[in-house]
Amino acid sequence: MASPHHRLKELGLTLPPAPKPMASYVPVRLVPLGGGRSLLFVAGQVPVVDGELKHVGRVPEEVDLEGAREAAKICALNILAQVDAAAGLDRVERLDKVEQVASLTGFVRSAAGFGEQPQVINAASDLLAEVLGEAGKHSRAAVGVAELPRGVSVEITAVFVVTKD
Amino acid sequence: MASPHHRLKELGLTLPPAPKPMASYVPVRLVPLGGGRSLLFVAGQVPVVDGELKHVGRVPEEVDLEGAREAAKICALNILAQVDAAAGLDRVERLDKVEQVASLTGFVRSAAGFGEQPQVINAASDLLAEVLGEAGKHSRAAVGVAELPRGVSVEITAVFVVTKD
Amino acid sequence: MASPHHRLKELGLTLPPAPKPMASYVPVRLVPLGGGRSLLFVAGQVPVVDGELKHVGRVPEEVDLEGAREAAKICALNILAQVDAAAGLDRVERLDKVEQVASLTGFVRSAAGFGEQPQVINAASDLLAEVLGEAGKHSRAAVGVAELPRGVSVEITAVFVVTKD
Repeated sequence: MASPHHRLKELGLTLPPAPKPMASYVPVRLVPLGGGRSLLFVAGQVPVVDGELKHVGRVPEEVDLEGAREAAKICALNILAQVDAAAGLDRVERLDKVEQVASLTGFVRSAAGFGEQPQVINAASDLLAEVLGEAGKHSRAAVGVAELPRGVSVEITAVFVVTKD
Repeated sequence: MASPHHRLKELGLTLPPAPKPMASYVPVRLVPLGGGRSLLFVAGQVPVVDGELKHVGRVPEEVDLEGAREAAKICALNILAQVDAAAGLDRVERLDKVEQVASLTGFVRSAAGFGEQPQVINAASDLLAEVLGEAGKHSRAAVGVAELPRGVSVEITAVFVVTKD
Repeated sequence: MASPHHRLKELGLTLPPAPKPMASYVPVRLVPLGGGRSLLFVAGQVPVVDGELKHVGRVPEEVDLEGAREAAKICALNILAQVDAAAGLDRVERLDKVEQVASLTGFVRSAAGFGEQPQVINAASDLLAEVLGEAGKHSRAAVGVAELPRGVSVEITAVFVVTKD
């Protein structure tokens, strides 16, 4: 299979700069497991593009299913950007150092009666599998929440396993 | 103490087939820690029985406390079924390979003013302790969310620690 | 840098006794990683002081931003108390054994349209960094939920990495 960076290119996607945290936290935390492997906890990513929030509103009332899926895809791209930028990883082709995506938790800002959170978060899950192949498949929870930071439609957090070599 | 499978039998419970994911993800992810031990991330389980969703609705408006507790118990059984079926574990008596349940996160689809999420998720927590003994005791969060996939009343995700031998 | 216990004193804070779980779970679970290091999963902590719930209500309708931030700070203190009391850690100056805070998940019981979850959970994040220094910085998700156990305004769960020596 092609490298993750090559796959991104084939998909017509560009890895954005890793978004800065919205508040008092760090975007990733690396927990060494020994043998050069680490758990990488990725902070909740929101649909921010070039510093601007996209897809603000409740689903599907204010943001429709397609908009919410686009938001989830942006979250996934930002997660990949965070992994790529993570301190402690080698500098070149860091996405090649992903051993697996252990878990993904997706929060969808849901209007009353909306139960299609899986379809929304699938847009993120599918992207990870397209870019990382088998390594990108993950366990997952998708839930519908009342509100999200600054009103965004989707927030996604993840735990990766990465290697040094 | 009796084996987990024996305990299930004593409790009059049958381990169901591991439910298939509702979307683009895998039901479990195994993260080796060295020494034959692994973290096992279990995807969010919902109250599905034989492929059919049970206990759909908001608690306690549409599904009462007892119904929600039954939903939580089904989620816990499905979690055990996923652990039992997990690829990478030995084929025989896999539930015997549970070193501990590290954490459980329970989401209850809650009507306004409902604050008994702990009582709901207790039905899952108690089952894990009954079946797995000390190993089944876990750290936990229980929260009330607006909506859940396809309207189910409860969704539970878990992180286990399992061994190979 | 001063020891965590010394820093607490400087900040005018007293570590409370570790709150007892509200239901069928244990407050912490220690997952050994080898080399004397462990993941420590901390159960969801709520703003309980001396056994009494503080800051009950929806934010900002019933509990204002400052009240919610105070609730988040109490949750963080209770998390530190749980870590300090964790079985399996050395008895003296256990907070010195924190290698890092891997992740924090903050749930804020949010009224419709409230999107300042990050500002609320910052009160917890800032406290951890003030008390633990670099080790206290963490990845994080902050979400707004409909309801929380017994109506509290904030619930926070955490994963720490601790050492034996």
